[in-house]
Amino acid sequence: MADFTDKLRPAEPQGPSVLAQERAGSNINVNELSHHLLSRNDFLNRQKKILSILEPLPIFCKKNQLNMARPDRYHLGLARAKALRRLSLKHGWDREDYVMADYLMDEMGPYALQGTMFVTSVREQCNDEQKAYWLPKVENYEIIGCYGQTELGHGSNVKGIECQAKWDPQTKEFIIHSPTITASKWWNGALGRTANHAIVVAQLLLPDSKTGKYKSYGPHQFIVQIRDMKTNKPLDGIVVGDIGPKYGYPGMDNGYMLFDHFKVPHSALLSKYSGVDPERGTYIKPDNPAVVYGSLTFVRAQIIMHARLILARAVTVAVRYLSIRRQFSDRDSKGPGSPEQAVLNYPTVQIRILPLLATTFALHYTGEAMYKLYWGTRQQIEKTGDFSRLAEMHAASSGLKSLCTTLAADGIETCRRAMGGHGFGGGSGMIALNNEYLSKPTVEGDNWMITQQTAAYLIKRMAEVVDKPRMKPTDSVDEQFQEYIMNTKSYNKRVNNFDVVGYPIELVRAFKQRACYFSYQAYHARVVEKKPWTSMMLQLHKLSRAHSESLLVSNFYDAVFTDTPNPALDAATLDVLRVLFRLFALFTLEVSASEFLLAKALTVDMLQYVAPAIQDLMAQVRPHAVALVDAWAVPDYLLESALGSYDGDVYNRLFRKAHKENPLNLLTFNPDWRSEEIVMGEGEENARKRLEALALGVTAKDHEQSTALKPRL
Amino acid sequence: MADFTDKLRPAEPQGPSVLAQERAGSNINVNELSHHLLSRNDFLNRQKKILSILEPLPIFCKKNQLNMARPDRYHLGLARAKALRRLSLKHGWDREDYVMADYLMDEMGPYALQGTMFVTSVREQCNDEQKAYWLPKVENYEIIGCYGQTELGHGSNVKGIECQAKWDPQTKEFIIHSPTITASKWWNGALGRTANHAIVVAQLLLPDSKTGKYKSYGPHQFIVQIRDMKTNKPLDGIVVGDIGPKYGYPGMDNGYMLFDHFKVPHSALLSKYSGVDPERGTYIKPDNPAVVYGSLTFVRAQIIMHARLILARAVTVAVRYLSIRRQFSDRDSKGPGSPEQAVLNYPTVQIRILPLLATTFALHYTGEAMYKLYWGTRQQIEKTGDFSRLAEMHAASSGLKSLCTTLAADGIETCRRAMGGHGFGGGSGMIALNNEYLSKPTVEGDNWMITQQTAAYLIKRMAEVVDKPRMKPTDSVDEQFQEYIMNTKSYNKRVNNFDVVGYPIELVRAFKQRACYFSYQAYHARVVEKKPWTSMMLQLHKLSRAHSESLLVSNFYDAVFTDTPNPALDAATLDVLRVLFRLFALFTLEVSASEFLLAKALTVDMLQYVAPAIQDLMAQVRPHAVALVDAWAVPDYLLESALGSYDGDVYNRLFRKAHKENPLNLLTFNPDWRSEEIVMGEGEENARKRLEALALGVTAKDHEQSTALKPRL
Repeated sequence: MADFTDKLRPAEPQGPSVLAQERAGSNINVNELSHHLLSRNDFLNRQKKILSILEPLPIFCKKNQLNMARPDRYHLGLARAKALRRLSLKHGWDREDYVMADYLMDEMGPYALQGTMFVTSVREQCNDEQKAYWLPKVENYEIIGCYGQTELGHGSNVKGIECQAKWDPQTKEFIIHSPTITASKWWNGALGRTANHAIVVAQLLLPDSKTGKYKSYGPHQFIVQIRDMKTNKPLDGIVVGDIGPKYGYPGMDNGYMLFDHFKVPHSALLSKYSGVDPERGTYIKPDNPAVVYGSLTFVRAQIIMHARLILARAVTVAVRYLSIRRQFSDRDSKGPGSPEQAVLNYPTVQIRILPLLATTFALHYTGEAMYKLYWGTRQQIEKTGDFSRLAEMHAASSGLKSLCTTLAADGIETCRRAMGGHGFGGGSGMIALNNEYLSKPTVEGDNWMITQQTAAYLIKRMAEVVDKPRMKPTDSVDEQFQEYIMNTKSYNKRVNNFDVVGYPIELVRAFKQRACYFSYQAYHARVVEKKPWTSMMLQLHKLSRAHSESLLVSNFYDAVFTDTPNPALDAATLDVLRVLFRLFALFTLEVSASEFLLAKALTVDMLQYVAPAIQDLMAQVRPHAVALVDAWAVPDYLLESALGSYDGDVYNRLFRKAHKENPLNLLTFNPDWRSEEIVMGEGEENARKRLEALALGVTAKDHEQSTALKPRL
Repeated sequence: MADFTDKLRPAEPQGPSVLAQERAGSNINVNELSHHLLSRNDFLNRQKKILSILEPLPIFCKKNQLNMARPDRYHLGLARAKALRRLSLKHGWDREDYVMADYLMDEMGPYALQGTMFVTSVREQCNDEQKAYWLPKVENYEIIGCYGQTELGHGSNVKGIECQAKWDPQTKEFIIHSPTITASKWWNGALGRTANHAIVVAQLLLPDSKTGKYKSYGPHQFIVQIRDMKTNKPLDGIVVGDIGPKYGYPGMDNGYMLFDHFKVPHSALLSKYSGVDPERGTYIKPDNPAVVYGSLTFVRAQIIMHARLILARAVTVAVRYLSIRRQFSDRDSKGPGSPEQAVLNYPTVQIRILPLLATTFALHYTGEAMYKLYWGTRQQIEKTGDFSRLAEMHAASSGLKSLCTTLAADGIETCRRAMGGHGFGGGSGMIALNNEYLSKPTVEGDNWMITQQTAAYLIKRMAEVVDKPRMKPTDSVDEQFQEYIMNTKSYNKRVNNFDVVGYPIELVRAFKQRACYFSYQAYHARVVEKKPWTSMMLQLHKLSRAHSESLLVSNFYDAVFTDTPNPALDAATLDVLRVLFRLFALFTLEVSASEFLLAKALTVDMLQYVAPAIQDLMAQVRPHAVALVDAWAVPDYLLESALGSYDGDVYNRLFRKAHKENPLNLLTFNPDWRSEEIVMGEGEENARKRLEALALGVTAKDHEQSTALKPRL
């Protein structure tokens, strides 16, 4: 509908010309840097290819998503999941293409478990016979599956799950049963309304051959059909449904499920590593489970690489919008006519955004280092059977998963708040991003809990090094610890006053010193003083963070100072990355400055130069901010943000979205409290019934039948 | 529908018995403490009274809210707003009752501006004649209003707004006009679909009597009818609508509005303080605007008191659930049979929750102190005409608003994450709470920006004190500064090694020392070194935080150590509050420990005792945690949380909510990708059309007409 607003323009300066100036003002080679960051698995070309397929299709249009009822969002999620599967066949997508489509569609849908946990279990836990039967059905999506491990009462503590699979020697079946409400499966993706099959994790209960008394052999995986293949109704003896709304993931049906003495055949127990002898009802023990660690590291490297893209998305929106947004003229400028400043020029805004911009690169180089470590270790294992580096890798991956997902989750919200009022609106593109990513600090190992694994490893290494300071180091951790012990012995109370402001390498040393100090303290408390583990948990968490930050700093340093950039970078771009390194490291140091002081890695005298140095580094990064986020190449379709679009036409996009695409604006309302009517013309009685039913979450008809019982206004 | 789950119970221990034990294990007098905290304005009785009215009414049922489409949520919001108005007349509610109902209903609805910004403008900015005309209409809700200040292009910088009100000397009317898209009003509550009147803030443009050239006299308020009173359609020359979905506030219609040379009479300009001479078209200057500061302080005291209740709500849910939730047995316990620990027993959980529990009390006592300061200053002004304390009060209120809303907003999310997987679900009650409160750090003065006001005041005071160290202090800030200057002069490089671990009063001193140090540094940089204001912004923000934290610590200390508790508290309860004081202060100190080191308020030697002391204090608070949150008396209706309900029946509530109250579970879906059908039985063609229209946000009919043009899968 045309009106006078069609001809209006935003006030000067126009966003597109601001961004053009910003882009012209940086000497960074954006394409080269993009290629440097995003060439793994041909990311950039793949993104372009898949984007061109998805973006034009109506079903993948995102603009109405925030308006929808949650049930409708699931409907759409299922429709999109099916569409992706059909597209994948039509275009002959490989697994990476499919992952890219998921990433661009930007919603976890009801088929998400099929290609991940479900197929992984079938592939890695089935014996040959089972695999031959199930794998084709899974890979061809003939059955739709989910992964049922977490329960209402137990998440991280998998050993505590209550669902039982009891072997019946008579019928040679397992009887799957949920003895309590807390034994209900809970949160499991695709279980709620979609899946017809599930991997069910249950306590394996076998009878003692003499007494007949049942004993648990711990959680095991079973593959179970849960719904009828024709009607998709639950099978008898199973209660299953969707757990309801949650933060984010509206297109996914997270489920609950309980079993009432539900029988499955012997073949349901996935039996690659362990099993039950069907004749004797005895347990067959598993082989060395250490290989699991390796793939966990790989998954965590992926989590870090994902975290960098998520954070890059938030930073992209913030940097572009805050370059365009004007607010207040400089307080010291004279005269009323002085222009308003770009918000990104204020140090109070820079301090929130630019260290996060630097963090995207820090995450990148550590993700790359993790991949290298993973492939290197794998090769080592395959060639020599040497598993010795697995523990280091696993320890590093736990602490880094915790740190990196926390940095990204907090970073999104920091970016959002820095954008003031518009950050709070749907046009920011930050609402869904924030809501979805908030699960990451909790899932795949709670961020506060898994740091214990890192700390435990470091304590163990430190104990060995203290014991045998001259032994051949098994890994880089040992080397650091040996050096630390040597230093502390010779100069017991010496402060290592690293010149963290003057020299990049001194930053690396300061972070190592802090990590070593905390490792030694934790070792001493646990091994020498025999302190209870639980009482040390805060200390252990700090240790893991110190170690992980040290890894981020070291990997970033190596990438921009030591190694030859691969793919290549020109000198001007590399110079900016070096500034980003210093900004990341100094900012991270300042956040925990008191820990560096305690660790004698810093003096109070040096500390006072840190804040001014950070401000100076931010001023150096500022002219390149737009170019740097451009290099992350996040497409507009993924940003879904009026504030962050590549063209910078912020205000036109915000306004048109509100004025032309808001279903609420299609109706006219009755604002008068003396009438109960809501929509003009619907009448009072209708409105009352409709609204009450809505509030109660029942159909209007059901509500009418029960209204006699309800109090009335 | 009955099934086998009806008979199941959660595993032991049962939540209700856990909470009963927790409650029995504390010697806190909960009722007395409740009364101590919540007697202002008869809060507790009022809460009970209003709750008994709202809770039984279907329209105020909250359980389906997270399932609804955003347009439906606005419908419900409007229906509730109307219902509250009718209830208010029926029961003869006063303003406090109405506010309580709003608080319990827990959603900002379309009438929210009527009783706040709209009526305040009419009451405080109208001249007598205007007031006589408008006030009865507003107070009786004959017209529904909103407050149109913020624009697409300008928020905090009110002086920069673009909407114009140009005086036409011929017709003696103002012509209200939006020259650009960025001049559109934006975000204004109740403007989107509801209000028929608006306070419009526009640049007042008057012609020069000689040249006829127009000049702006700055932003002024106009009262403008914007929609037809019968049809509620926008008047000609106005484009107005809802801006669309956003974080939280789904029941509110935040609006945009543009004017196309829209004419309003001379009487539209609210003219209590300033005005336009209708005959000569000249400006009538305003009186002393200082009184505005006073009411701002009052509003900010309310914000702090609100923040404490919001934070108390999050902490209530967390403390109750985490007392009940079990996870892992103690690592050092021997044998497989050792019981799982309550999650709240882990220090890594305590460190996130218990300092926040202490923070609720810190906010409380500072809110109380602000009220006292406000009423005291007001009395002083009325009796003696002495405005001298206004500036101190305003400065304190800016920094405190920033700090306290940040603490609450971050605290909610910290609580949510501490609850692991269930914190992420709709049953937590944390989703709406989090989303809604996230606006507070941005509105009513952006939390990063308003700290400049506090810092500017402190620099000014420090400059005077340095100049005249022996002058009679005008306020408590002067006194502190004088003492600081004296101390620094006599012992120039002395470290005040306060024994913050041993003595509560030393904590107060350490916080003051830090605030004074930053004040002096900022004074020196600005006044002596003449540094640019913008370059100092980070320093200024830190200063404001240091000052505000010092106020929180001092006020808390005074309340539990110096003053006689009023209403009274028994000794056992007071003892626990004193532990909470130390926990709050030490925790706050540790977060910024390096600042205390720089300020010579702490030594590195003392610092190493801080973390163990915090852990020890948390162990002392732990047995009282449930009793302490009970004292905040947040009703279940407000918590809307399966995890946090008073009875502790966590798992039953979570499960029943999912199993019995989830509309998604009423339908059966077709999971097979080879069919485009989504809901079983709807057919492929239907589903395709329905889902595409949903994605595009258009009606199915409109979509059908345009599908010929769309790419097809």
